[in-house]
Amino acid sequence: MNIGGKPYRTIWPLADGTGVGVIDQTKLPFAFEIRELKELADAAEAISTMVVRGAPLIGVTAAYGVAIALGADASDDMLSIAYDTLYRTRPTAVNLRWALDEMRNALLPLPPAERAAAAWKLADRICADDIETSRRMGEAGLPLIQQAYARTGQRVNILTHCNAGWLATVDWGTATAPIYMAHDAGIPVHVWVDETRPRNQGASLTAFELGQHGVPHTVIADNAGGHLMQHGKVDLCIVGTDRTTARGDVCNKIGTYLKALAAFHNQVPFYVALPHTTIDWTILDGVREIPIEERSAREVTHMQGRLEDGTLATMEIVSPGSAAANPAFDVTPAEFVTALITDRGVCAATAEGLQGLFPERAAA
Amino acid sequence: MNIGGKPYRTIWPLADGTGVGVIDQTKLPFAFEIRELKELADAAEAISTMVVRGAPLIGVTAAYGVAIALGADASDDMLSIAYDTLYRTRPTAVNLRWALDEMRNALLPLPPAERAAAAWKLADRICADDIETSRRMGEAGLPLIQQAYARTGQRVNILTHCNAGWLATVDWGTATAPIYMAHDAGIPVHVWVDETRPRNQGASLTAFELGQHGVPHTVIADNAGGHLMQHGKVDLCIVGTDRTTARGDVCNKIGTYLKALAAFHNQVPFYVALPHTTIDWTILDGVREIPIEERSAREVTHMQGRLEDGTLATMEIVSPGSAAANPAFDVTPAEFVTALITDRGVCAATAEGLQGLFPERAAA
Repeated sequence: MNIGGKPYRTIWPLADGTGVGVIDQTKLPFAFEIRELKELADAAEAISTMVVRGAPLIGVTAAYGVAIALGADASDDMLSIAYDTLYRTRPTAVNLRWALDEMRNALLPLPPAERAAAAWKLADRICADDIETSRRMGEAGLPLIQQAYARTGQRVNILTHCNAGWLATVDWGTATAPIYMAHDAGIPVHVWVDETRPRNQGASLTAFELGQHGVPHTVIADNAGGHLMQHGKVDLCIVGTDRTTARGDVCNKIGTYLKALAAFHNQVPFYVALPHTTIDWTILDGVREIPIEERSAREVTHMQGRLEDGTLATMEIVSPGSAAANPAFDVTPAEFVTALITDRGVCAATAEGLQGLFPERAAA
Repeated sequence: MNIGGKPYRTIWPLADGTGVGVIDQTKLPFAFEIRELKELADAAEAISTMVVRGAPLIGVTAAYGVAIALGADASDDMLSIAYDTLYRTRPTAVNLRWALDEMRNALLPLPPAERAAAAWKLADRICADDIETSRRMGEAGLPLIQQAYARTGQRVNILTHCNAGWLATVDWGTATAPIYMAHDAGIPVHVWVDETRPRNQGASLTAFELGQHGVPHTVIADNAGGHLMQHGKVDLCIVGTDRTTARGDVCNKIGTYLKALAAFHNQVPFYVALPHTTIDWTILDGVREIPIEERSAREVTHMQGRLEDGTLATMEIVSPGSAAANPAFDVTPAEFVTALITDRGVCAATAEGLQGLFPERAAA
């Protein structure tokens, strides 16, 4: 997608082969800075400090991290060190583990002399696959926006929550992929961007990336979406998901559930975009079975932003001495999800719907 | 209610009869400061700059503002000037107009020499009436909390949105009145406080006043309430309202509607506390008939808080260049309201329910 009129990805191999470039997402939206990762420690730090974030991008960064490490030392020991170092950065990230397993399983059998080249090649493939996955979700979801436009001939208003955008992936994003494709195809779209407390990924990241690519959008408080739907100002919702159960329950950033309820009551289609890798085929009932991470209260009591003099700062915003709770995700039961947009197409948020797109799983 | 162990009201006549004292609510929650209002201009400025806020408190402040003005000059001209000056501070505030009308209608027929004393007496009565109204809502709502406690024998978890607390009134509050009474009666209560974006009245004011009075509470992002209800962590919700229709639709701070939907789907009772003065008997369908105020985008794009060095500051928190929208209220249809807690008792959120408590209106 574009930043300042120039196409970017969130991660790319440096031309001289010494490492990768990434967008420093801790500086967004107030500054756009590039970081070069040239050592294993750089890659690990980029993940742990959230210079790169978003499950798909974390996986790709870890894959390149292994390649960078093996470029300096292709021994079994280093492969093991690289795996452990990168895994420790965000141990709950499913894509991180998956990418590291892919790399180790492919590289360990090879003679050390061949490992570095093979590692770069495999990391490039994991990176390209991620782009392809996003592109397919975009193509699957695009007709839903086209149909909304065909129905009314008016600008299509889409509400999204959190950042399921291209900054969380390598390109296109998940929930945003159909939106970028519709915009690029000339369909007039406008996005209601939930600011998405407590980490404000909507106000900072989603607003930034939509703005840079030229997609019309408006930031709103998380409280506003129900009112907008009640008054016909939302044509459809598209959100991402961190984990989807085998019957289509959706675990996503806290607050997603409230928007799904409002969409349900106001006959607004509520779509969830997901790469098939986020489907947890071992779980049916998301509300009962998915443990919800409780994150630091400080994310609620403090906020980052930019002061009038341009400096970035952290501010206390809750009455001192008051406790705060911070459940990071919630589960939207499948009955409130109109359809799932996957990299294999669109399906109903039901066990049958998912099995139809993934027959190999239905057999298993 | 108590602040630092000492009982306070939000407004009180000064002992020397020269004016009133108020809590400067613009400094909360990071500083507790008292302001003395001794001239008409002080009272007008206190309302317009939100040193005092909350519909009931604004009305009481305006009444005292008239008394202060007439203490210096009890002429017809001054009565008219005081009315106009105070009315212009927040022209959409219904209680403001009501209090000013009460004062003018009572004082204009009097000889000027009697007006000042009569004005103070009437302002004192309006103030006392407000406390009594809150106290009655508290007594009406208290059994709902007692019943919840009797059912489980466990701490009663109550979710509230925005600040319908004593800081918005003279004492007790509206939604908080039953909570303070339950706490004072020894029932173990715990309040989930929605931070309430964009103006954060929950995180700053509700958390402050509950904390100062010793009521256990936890601040949460507005996004979290649905998840908490889904997991049985909320026994009941109590919110306030700015305007209630004759059939029980409730117009309140943006985001109230989303919580009501979540309560409905999770069988959590959703109560709305209101003084009967907020009932608009001329309107039935709140969603269609109540115009929603669109406030400044800056309330979404910027936030106030305290820096680490203790200074209060304003920070930009949205991606620069992105538009923001700020609908300030939403309407919760009566079907999602379990019951209304009024100063005449509890009733169903229906035309019949309201008419049962206000038979003089049913006749009209």
